[in-house]
Amino acid sequence: MTERTLLSSFPSYDKLATLAQSAHTPSLKQLFAEDADRAERFRLAAAGLELDYSKQLITQESLAGLLALATEADIAGEIDDLFAGKHINNTEDRPALHMLLRATSSTSSERLKEVESSRALMQTWSQQLRSGAWLGFSDTPITDVVNIGIGGSDLGPRLVTEALQPYQSDVNCHYVANVDPADLQSALLDLNPESTLFIICSKSFRTEETLTNGLAARQWLVNAGASDDDVAKHFVAVTSNIEAAQDFGIKERHCLPMWDWVGGRYSVWSAIGLSCAISIGWDHFAQFLAGAEAMDQHVKSTPLAENMPVLCSLLEVWNCHFLGAGNHVVLPYDNGLRQLPAYLQQLTMESNGKRVNANGALLPYNTGPVLWGSAGTMGQHSFHQLLHQGTLLCPADFVLPLNTHTGMDAQHRRLIANCIAQSRTLMIGRSVDEAEAALLDRGLSVAEAARLAPHLSMPGNRPSNTITMRSLTPATLGALLALYEHRTFCTARLWGINPFDQWGVELGKEIGVQVLEKLENAKAVSSMDASTEKLIDRWRSAQP
Amino acid sequence: MTERTLLSSFPSYDKLATLAQSAHTPSLKQLFAEDADRAERFRLAAAGLELDYSKQLITQESLAGLLALATEADIAGEIDDLFAGKHINNTEDRPALHMLLRATSSTSSERLKEVESSRALMQTWSQQLRSGAWLGFSDTPITDVVNIGIGGSDLGPRLVTEALQPYQSDVNCHYVANVDPADLQSALLDLNPESTLFIICSKSFRTEETLTNGLAARQWLVNAGASDDDVAKHFVAVTSNIEAAQDFGIKERHCLPMWDWVGGRYSVWSAIGLSCAISIGWDHFAQFLAGAEAMDQHVKSTPLAENMPVLCSLLEVWNCHFLGAGNHVVLPYDNGLRQLPAYLQQLTMESNGKRVNANGALLPYNTGPVLWGSAGTMGQHSFHQLLHQGTLLCPADFVLPLNTHTGMDAQHRRLIANCIAQSRTLMIGRSVDEAEAALLDRGLSVAEAARLAPHLSMPGNRPSNTITMRSLTPATLGALLALYEHRTFCTARLWGINPFDQWGVELGKEIGVQVLEKLENAKAVSSMDASTEKLIDRWRSAQP
Repeated sequence: MTERTLLSSFPSYDKLATLAQSAHTPSLKQLFAEDADRAERFRLAAAGLELDYSKQLITQESLAGLLALATEADIAGEIDDLFAGKHINNTEDRPALHMLLRATSSTSSERLKEVESSRALMQTWSQQLRSGAWLGFSDTPITDVVNIGIGGSDLGPRLVTEALQPYQSDVNCHYVANVDPADLQSALLDLNPESTLFIICSKSFRTEETLTNGLAARQWLVNAGASDDDVAKHFVAVTSNIEAAQDFGIKERHCLPMWDWVGGRYSVWSAIGLSCAISIGWDHFAQFLAGAEAMDQHVKSTPLAENMPVLCSLLEVWNCHFLGAGNHVVLPYDNGLRQLPAYLQQLTMESNGKRVNANGALLPYNTGPVLWGSAGTMGQHSFHQLLHQGTLLCPADFVLPLNTHTGMDAQHRRLIANCIAQSRTLMIGRSVDEAEAALLDRGLSVAEAARLAPHLSMPGNRPSNTITMRSLTPATLGALLALYEHRTFCTARLWGINPFDQWGVELGKEIGVQVLEKLENAKAVSSMDASTEKLIDRWRSAQP
Repeated sequence: MTERTLLSSFPSYDKLATLAQSAHTPSLKQLFAEDADRAERFRLAAAGLELDYSKQLITQESLAGLLALATEADIAGEIDDLFAGKHINNTEDRPALHMLLRATSSTSSERLKEVESSRALMQTWSQQLRSGAWLGFSDTPITDVVNIGIGGSDLGPRLVTEALQPYQSDVNCHYVANVDPADLQSALLDLNPESTLFIICSKSFRTEETLTNGLAARQWLVNAGASDDDVAKHFVAVTSNIEAAQDFGIKERHCLPMWDWVGGRYSVWSAIGLSCAISIGWDHFAQFLAGAEAMDQHVKSTPLAENMPVLCSLLEVWNCHFLGAGNHVVLPYDNGLRQLPAYLQQLTMESNGKRVNANGALLPYNTGPVLWGSAGTMGQHSFHQLLHQGTLLCPADFVLPLNTHTGMDAQHRRLIANCIAQSRTLMIGRSVDEAEAALLDRGLSVAEAARLAPHLSMPGNRPSNTITMRSLTPATLGALLALYEHRTFCTARLWGINPFDQWGVELGKEIGVQVLEKLENAKAVSSMDASTEKLIDRWRSAQP
């Protein structure tokens, strides 16, 4: 493991820090007025996506500085190392090879062979399910699939299935993740045990939530009269722990593989995506993989200045590190992408929510921001007030498919108009004078207009990206998710982080076991803090 | 309108700013060790909720300072003014009287009479729908209700219906908000026009998204063979613009009222909640109102130090203003509350995402934080990594109903254990030495343990509230939402903000109209920035 350099130790750092001080002046509005080529200059195309980053608080000079930083940090070399399978996940001494899951060729031919055999099984099973050939215990064809998984075993498949609903077949896919029994219970409410298949997704086959829900699902089948043999027809597992899956009662031939070189948050491309393949069909799933592979080819082979994930990462570092933003808002203007912020929360915050670098040294600067957002236009009637007039810097990504699958083009134009208008509004703002003039136009008195104008004025100059695509297809969705994956990786390397481990979630699990013991046995010895003890008491005394 | 004082001008401010510098030491762990009464001291009960705030970074001294600040800011007087119907929404010269919507008595007897008559209609209609007495155009009973609204006309009803699913009747309620036609289209996919009722919620009856979806819904009925008279049987409106509703084709006697003294984000208690009343039944909806009224009584009549919304607000100001947090994470450990963060985003960010105070003076400090979160345990497999090991201060609210409606108590205990364990883990953290010892216990070599320990160590000392309730009922849900309403109000007043306007969303609407004109007519004159023009071109050239 090479010693990680602090971001602040790269030669270009000081110059960027100086430029950051004047990043807000001149304003974006002025920059556009002064430079007729700005919109053309600050845009990129790759793998079916177009990125307009001209509404970011950058100039040619600061962009050049950021690109120099990327060169000094050898981001190109880092990308090479990633693709070459170096053990970039150094704390776990593993490569991170999720790109192999969507690759059609690889130097790692052994691994690719395993991937291809998993793909072949996914293809066969998804076809069997979609054709009605997979029968439940009463010889009824399966009509509903329930994916039981959490984190990466849930967020990715859920997003893809929802986003690609226009491609959906007759088999309905449902997603259960929460250990709260209400989640499974409400999913099963309208389902028939005889025609329901469960996919248990857990790399370790030890995930508490997933196993608990899996056992409850099993019991639901048994309650419906299924024997052990019957039950086996209704369960599939995606796991690297086949033994544990068999102990659960899942046949070995009903198991699809996972590998230690795939992190949960990078696993939608693997058999974890089986429910998606069932929903949209294998050919579409293959296009989803191909879209991501196109972005892989782009990130690998494109010079830094034209490299979309690298650019997005540099803009993240600019906004978060140099301009001090502690959050990043993602606004997909497509109702099918409403889960995109939740998906990206795991991808970015689990990857880059670290306070030590890959060598274990405490970092002297902030790392991963809070990622949040919602589908537009929903947020316009909610938190956009804060985006426009709040005090915090909230860099935004607008994600905009330019065509709709609904056939309702006239209505869809309103969605397009709203998206484009929001990024423009964030940028241009409205001065107090402009607000006053608008109020006078509406017939307000001079005194009233003067009184209200400060409330209507907006600072503007708020930065955003707009990522467009012709329409949301399996291929463009694949490219979009791969874009954010590589962006997250590049940002991690600039900060010095290993984005592929997640040690921070371990201790909570251990303490969870201790608390559960206390709940189950009032006399269990423990020496927890008084607040925790009191919460446990409160739970106990609330039991009927 | 009294002149607003800056937070930083109150006498207690400087002392608090000094105390904030040492707020992280001694650690919470030490504070608990030194003070056996801490958990008991820092807790409160009100309206069926219990608040444990002992895991906040406060001492008796800082809490006393915060309470002094509340006294200096005359928060008690502000609350009195709110309830007295003073024109606290000064920019719109209106009172904010959403409490009246859940009141059983009031000095404003005229208004209460109107509210009571609206409640009576809600009761009648919800009973008619639930009993099958409300018939569609082919004399089929209504089985499905589609609420069409956005922002407050969507988020509140959606949350309440989902959260109180265990109380649900046979009528299914669906929610459509987004102007993206895919939202309505997927909601209608499995519905029968003959048995579907639409509720159009729009105070102004001019909301673009809502009217567009309303017209599309109307067309869906017409396509199914409904005449104009038929259509009228399938539409209800909640609006203060009855004329516009009638123009749309909704009968006057199918309109329920809204009032200018209710903001959208405070409107779930009004007829905007009709879909909830249909879903859970009138008696349960009345309990929901009563729960909120109990919190109103509490906030009105309780001294500051024991006043739950006031305390929560002071803690928000402590975390965001004095300790510098730019975000606030809300973690309901109840799957039914999964929309709570989205609901609270509107409530808090639309209310307090302002940069001027109520007098229009630019504020020299940060105001509303970014609110985000998800249902636990989902986030534990996603963004909790950043909560535990990231560099940002993310104050958390855990919301925990102590019993489940599912009957699956054993499984529910796991949910409880996880919630309690997370707040403890955030607080105690794990030192490098502790991490090293744990790794040696697992059999790692001395060198390996030393290398990995920094990655496993966690700083701890991360603040949280835990809000518990016996179970999630209509009454405790009402109390919970009212708690956040009053907390938002108190915080606004401490910062000097008017939380009841939302001028920041206006300009985007105007520009949206301009962009739509350009989309519809390539020759429309406009002089927008080059980025916006190029995005419009891109859309145009992507059209088939």
